[in-house]
Amino acid sequence: MNEKILAQDNKVLKRIFNLDTNAFAEGHIDSKTKEMIGLASSMVLRCDDCVKYHLGKCHEAGLTKEQVFEVFSIATLIGGSIVIPHLRRAVDYFEELDNQKLNNV
Amino acid sequence: MNEKILAQDNKVLKRIFNLDTNAFAEGHIDSKTKEMIGLASSMVLRCDDCVKYHLGKCHEAGLTKEQVFEVFSIATLIGGSIVIPHLRRAVDYFEELDNQKLNNV
Amino acid sequence: MNEKILAQDNKVLKRIFNLDTNAFAEGHIDSKTKEMIGLASSMVLRCDDCVKYHLGKCHEAGLTKEQVFEVFSIATLIGGSIVIPHLRRAVDYFEELDNQKLNNV
Amino acid sequence: MNEKILAQDNKVLKRIFNLDTNAFAEGHIDSKTKEMIGLASSMVLRCDDCVKYHLGKCHEAGLTKEQVFEVFSIATLIGGSIVIPHLRRAVDYFEELDNQKLNNV
Amino acid sequence: MNEKILAQDNKVLKRIFNLDTNAFAEGHIDSKTKEMIGLASSMVLRCDDCVKYHLGKCHEAGLTKEQVFEVFSIATLIGGSIVIPHLRRAVDYFEELDNQKLNNV
Amino acid sequence: MNEKILAQDNKVLKRIFNLDTNAFAEGHIDSKTKEMIGLASSMVLRCDDCVKYHLGKCHEAGLTKEQVFEVFSIATLIGGSIVIPHLRRAVDYFEELDNQKLNNV
Repeated sequence: MNEKILAQDNKVLKRIFNLDTNAFAEGHIDSKTKEMIGLASSMVLRCDDCVKYHLGKCHEAGLTKEQVFEVFSIATLIGGSIVIPHLRRAVDYFEELDNQKLNNV
Repeated sequence: MNEKILAQDNKVLKRIFNLDTNAFAEGHIDSKTKEMIGLASSMVLRCDDCVKYHLGKCHEAGLTKEQVFEVFSIATLIGGSIVIPHLRRAVDYFEELDNQKLNNV
Repeated sequence: MNEKILAQDNKVLKRIFNLDTNAFAEGHIDSKTKEMIGLASSMVLRCDDCVKYHLGKCHEAGLTKEQVFEVFSIATLIGGSIVIPHLRRAVDYFEELDNQKLNNV
Repeated sequence: MNEKILAQDNKVLKRIFNLDTNAFAEGHIDSKTKEMIGLASSMVLRCDDCVKYHLGKCHEAGLTKEQVFEVFSIATLIGGSIVIPHLRRAVDYFEELDNQKLNNV
Repeated sequence: MNEKILAQDNKVLKRIFNLDTNAFAEGHIDSKTKEMIGLASSMVLRCDDCVKYHLGKCHEAGLTKEQVFEVFSIATLIGGSIVIPHLRRAVDYFEELDNQKLNNV
Repeated sequence: MNEKILAQDNKVLKRIFNLDTNAFAEGHIDSKTKEMIGLASSMVLRCDDCVKYHLGKCHEAGLTKEQVFEVFSIATLIGGSIVIPHLRRAVDYFEELDNQKLNNV
């Protein structure tokens, strides 16, 4: 789908897509921490697709379930109980990621 | 001001205030990382008072200017240019925190 | 699904879940009124799952269709026409709750 | 200020202003309950001016401090700790309203 | 579905529905521009149904793909990368509208 | 203040600032229309500083009071009555811009 968007050759959109790679790259803050920041920001803004994306990255980076739940708890506290339906889907998806990993071993 | 709120003895509010301390305490994630998460979440939700609070905590925890700016950049990318006025005030406040520290040496 | 979240034994999340029960319990304000408040807050924040939850509680508490529509109208006025897609799904769900009740008689 | 807006004779804005009066009028739900709904909705959407407006109406309608705090607690739970700075200003303003009333007796 | 809502005869909701027609009608600003405004506002508020609605109207009004992408780029810049999942669905839907038109020729 | 932010040499932030110029430049859509889009988006997201910025640009571009009020009415309808305090400040600021212009003649 990104290909379709990039194919349109809209400079502003193309650059925003590039920035996404830049912003989460290893820098003065390590990329694992940045993904936790991305995850929490996505949860408080209540975007399921964005939560999934950053949760995948957190899982890849080796974040433990206990750590992920601490990110979840901060986001739910800051964002309020309105975040809970997204939390439920996030917990579900993290379990799925764990299962996929087990099946690949 | 918190005293006034707690004095009212509303159990739900009291517990939310307590949770705030719990959620950001050292745990499976260190508290410095948690404050960065709190800072980014506050920025994307565009709450100046909350940004100031977590920026103060980040400063205390020894986060460098380069690191703080990386948190700022993630939050501004995720939250969009609507975050920029809050970013300006945050940059201003971080400078103020630096100056206070210098004056105290 | 809540069981999975609670099983993880994250203190902050567990307490937020408990608070939910506390906040909507009969108190200085009756629980029927509290559910109307929960319904309107969920609508202006545009969370379908939360709207469904509180709409179910309002229905159980005996709120009439006319009353529910007055809550809907306040939420749509405050939250704007961006709320309308959620309003549509809410009206649909309330009708479903009415039908379920009729079938159970 | 409303006069200036209404003077412009923009039909849509004029009608939105009129709707505000209609939506909160005594109906199938009493206006006191409606003001509590307006207060909570304003808090979760984090609009200080709107909170003040509905808090004034709640105070006029004779809502007690205990009742107002229950509305506050639901709004803070649903909307999250990001609501707390607005809660502080709301508590302050409710106290002010109480003092004004005492001085007028 | 609108019929069900209007059938309920809630004056506030009925008027909000009417205002929708009024606000986007040809006026001091032409209706094509108004639909672009409606599209961008729907995107920054991240409402897929509203985006689809205004995108359909923009397509009807003859907005080109290049123009629609410029509206998308402004909305994504202002609203941030959190808008991207909605952008993807919007691009998909605009393509669908184009295909429907071709098939009808 | 932008200078301070740009001086920090954070690539992501610098590019977001550049994008702002790009996105609103004359293109397949004229810049006057783009500023109306920016104004409405800022209003529904309820950012006073952003509203002021785009209102200034709209004024410069020669938008009439009637046109500006039509943008306001769309934004207030979509975003809801929660937008009204920002509308008031916007009307005030537009008047100020008009007065400045008269004084400069």
